[in-house]
Amino acid sequence: MKFDWTTLIGLIAAICTTSSFLPQVIKILISKRTKDVSLLMYAILTTGLFLWLVYGFILKDFPLILANSISLTLSLCVLLLKIRHG
Amino acid sequence: MKFDWTTLIGLIAAICTTSSFLPQVIKILISKRTKDVSLLMYAILTTGLFLWLVYGFILKDFPLILANSISLTLSLCVLLLKIRHG
Repeated sequence: MKFDWTTLIGLIAAICTTSSFLPQVIKILISKRTKDVSLLMYAILTTGLFLWLVYGFILKDFPLILANSISLTLSLCVLLLKIRHG
Repeated sequence: MKFDWTTLIGLIAAICTTSSFLPQVIKILISKRTKDVSLLMYAILTTGLFLWLVYGFILKDFPLILANSISLTLSLCVLLLKIRHG
């Protein structure tokens, strides 16, 4: 029972942190504005998520690979939109 | 040797993703502008990071607790600044 609850909390946590960048991507696609979004944040975040993905591949850890693939894609979207819109 | 490289990649990844929110906090503190920052993103992200912290406490996993404490604090700062500045 304890294991199930713990796994559930971890799963919801992973879904939240992974999907959280989607509203930011959608917001930018609609407004085409990124002035208040930090370029440095998304540069560091994208680098970090890429390294997490490499880490996941080395460990052959499927949840790490899946979660970080999604996060990296979304973070990269924000980064590219920020570079485009300034 | 492989273990060392893997741990190093994981460590750098953790430092990047954890510290990445700091430039966004500093940017907002200087500009006092959050118009282009997504409220929904930081609401979901803060919830997710809080759940990761709970998960870390249940597993008594010190790296999880440390990394998510820092991320949660920074994410919460952005969320509160977004609520304040709109």
